[in-house]
Amino acid sequence: MKLPTDPADNLAALIRCPSVTPAEGGALTALEAMLAPLGFAVERPVFSQDATADVENLYARRSAEGPHLMFAGHTDVVPVGDEKAWTHPPFAAEIANGVMYGRGAVDMKGGIACFVAALARHVEATGGPKGSVSLLITGDEEGPAVNGSVKLLEWATARGERWDACLLGEPTNPDRLGDMIKVGRRGSLSGAVTVLGRQGHVAYPHLADNPMRGLMTLLDALHGPPFDAGTERFQPTNLEVTSVDVGNTAANVIPARATAAFNVRFNDTWSAESLQAEIHNRLDAASRRRKYRKGRTEPVEFELSWRESPSHVFLTHDEKLVGTLSRSVEAVTGVRPALSTSGGTSDARFIKDYCPVVEFGLVGRTMHMVDERVALTDLEMLTEIYRRFIGNWFGEQ
Amino acid sequence: MKLPTDPADNLAALIRCPSVTPAEGGALTALEAMLAPLGFAVERPVFSQDATADVENLYARRSAEGPHLMFAGHTDVVPVGDEKAWTHPPFAAEIANGVMYGRGAVDMKGGIACFVAALARHVEATGGPKGSVSLLITGDEEGPAVNGSVKLLEWATARGERWDACLLGEPTNPDRLGDMIKVGRRGSLSGAVTVLGRQGHVAYPHLADNPMRGLMTLLDALHGPPFDAGTERFQPTNLEVTSVDVGNTAANVIPARATAAFNVRFNDTWSAESLQAEIHNRLDAASRRRKYRKGRTEPVEFELSWRESPSHVFLTHDEKLVGTLSRSVEAVTGVRPALSTSGGTSDARFIKDYCPVVEFGLVGRTMHMVDERVALTDLEMLTEIYRRFIGNWFGEQ
Ligand SMILES: [Zn+2]
Ligand SMILES: [Zn+2]
Repeated sequence: MKLPTDPADNLAALIRCPSVTPAEGGALTALEAMLAPLGFAVERPVFSQDATADVENLYARRSAEGPHLMFAGHTDVVPVGDEKAWTHPPFAAEIANGVMYGRGAVDMKGGIACFVAALARHVEATGGPKGSVSLLITGDEEGPAVNGSVKLLEWATARGERWDACLLGEPTNPDRLGDMIKVGRRGSLSGAVTVLGRQGHVAYPHLADNPMRGLMTLLDALHGPPFDAGTERFQPTNLEVTSVDVGNTAANVIPARATAAFNVRFNDTWSAESLQAEIHNRLDAASRRRKYRKGRTEPVEFELSWRESPSHVFLTHDEKLVGTLSRSVEAVTGVRPALSTSGGTSDARFIKDYCPVVEFGLVGRTMHMVDERVALTDLEMLTEIYRRFIGNWFGEQ
Repeated sequence: MKLPTDPADNLAALIRCPSVTPAEGGALTALEAMLAPLGFAVERPVFSQDATADVENLYARRSAEGPHLMFAGHTDVVPVGDEKAWTHPPFAAEIANGVMYGRGAVDMKGGIACFVAALARHVEATGGPKGSVSLLITGDEEGPAVNGSVKLLEWATARGERWDACLLGEPTNPDRLGDMIKVGRRGSLSGAVTVLGRQGHVAYPHLADNPMRGLMTLLDALHGPPFDAGTERFQPTNLEVTSVDVGNTAANVIPARATAAFNVRFNDTWSAESLQAEIHNRLDAASRRRKYRKGRTEPVEFELSWRESPSHVFLTHDEKLVGTLSRSVEAVTGVRPALSTSGGTSDARFIKDYCPVVEFGLVGRTMHMVDERVALTDLEMLTEIYRRFIGNWFGEQ
């Protein structure tokens, strides 16, 4: 039986499945066809929740022995955007000048294709690792992420699955393969602050209380001073005001309320809870400092609310996992990868509650863009990195 | 023939016409019926403009001799609001405990009713003033004010009408009849400033430029220092931010642009043009002062636009007009009225280009509110004030 040892073949099969979230698009079926000859038991649970689309996911395990290594990823992709702007069709996997084009080429059908090829080569050469490998693949990473990894991890755990380590195959390299391993992620917290003023006519401002003045006072307090100076492995915590909305179209009316939304990406100086308290304290202090008209002091009346649940900050300290991956990258690419915690959140924020997790994949430069693409040489190198990592993590080389 | 000497009768007839802008509602017909026995020639021109409702107006003149006194006002009223909350129906002119209820009671069918009664008494007693009295009554003061006074003044001027002075009967008294004559009005200027940033992901703020930071810098420059300290007859110039709108609903996105709308009420320190220049200079200077990330300085990119045409500031210096009105008020009420320029704009801003204009009417406290109402004693006093004013202005007493 032919094993799926060629990452470009694997990737082409996956790209040809138009699996824009929440559509399965044939991608999980294609993946299952690669995994079956490698001896995996494959399950494809569908998860549902009110007000979201049903999403199909895949969990596959090879062997029942320990130790147990999880490879995590997603087959769903973002929409193609301006399809006419693509120089090659987004779901055709065309190759030109040694580069394969297609939505998901790097984010992250490419990572999955390479991991499957690496494991296939390992099986072909040695019969496979002494222990278990599982793939935890979601179809809801680019969407609301409600019917994906969160439920899949709970589902597998309820069936008794336990893991010793996880490699997540997201595109972690900014410029060149080998640049960067992600060993943690900042936390993310979204909130909104509404200032309650008093509506009135612009000609009689003394009878009104313009909430924009109060809101600017509060936003100044959120913008500075810096929350921290950064830590050993993390950038400084940063807050961005993402929207301010009043919605008053009458030029002669002072509005009654003004709302600002904000997001904070925070490091391990903070827990989500301690940062929420800090933000509340800043707003509270600023609201009481406000100089009102005619020298009087009158606190700004505000409401603070938190949106969604926060993503918690984490840092993976597992030396076996990080060291093995780092040495595998360096052996293949000649580059010692940076151990980074930069960038956005990923499903690692869910996985870290189950086992240590690190992330390494392709070069992310074209992800989510028109003409998303990957060099065939990168596919080959990443396959070799993953093959070495599997061998070394299981202690065979 | 019975002359309309009773202001309460006149007002009741007007209130019973539901003339919510732009509806004539019978109000101009009722007024014409009062004016005809006083010897007025009455015209009721209808004005039109694209995208606005047609509006009927009234111009009436008595005699062709000079001098020529204009009384200006409007018969249109604002909507009733929560009709169930009225203790008496809004178009019934019911009287309870010496108070008449109804939409327009003070703003400003009441002022018209009193002026007509004052003139009727004068005609009854003396045969009428030696000179011309005209009424310039619009049906579009509470609406867009497009098919009202502006066109009516042009229309009358084109027919050769010229005036020596104007009394506008808006409710000028904050608390008690006699409190306040309006001898001018602040100007009004509305604008919007948009800051152009660079959209991006909140996790990579160094690749984006959050327009809210720049906008807050610019709004700080508009909020202070004060534009002026006020002048002899005017309050300080005041700017209010009336809305800020970004409209970004994605918690992980730094938006591309942010817009703030503002309105300035300005005194005779400024012309509309000099104030526009000052605002532009403030924004320009603030935009260049901005400290950008990492100590670099990078100007805030912004666009400034002006909404509608400005209302110009004015102050009436006509001693005969102001003095005669002031002495008439004091003689009837025992109160020396303040000569004020406070509050919002009125149609005086249009009339002032044709002749000196002052404003005096009823107590405005219930205008635009549920249970708008007027004391019958106030109607009687205002009628006497207007009667004295007519006599004295024409030099007969
Ligand atoms: Zn991804
Ligand atoms: Zn009015």
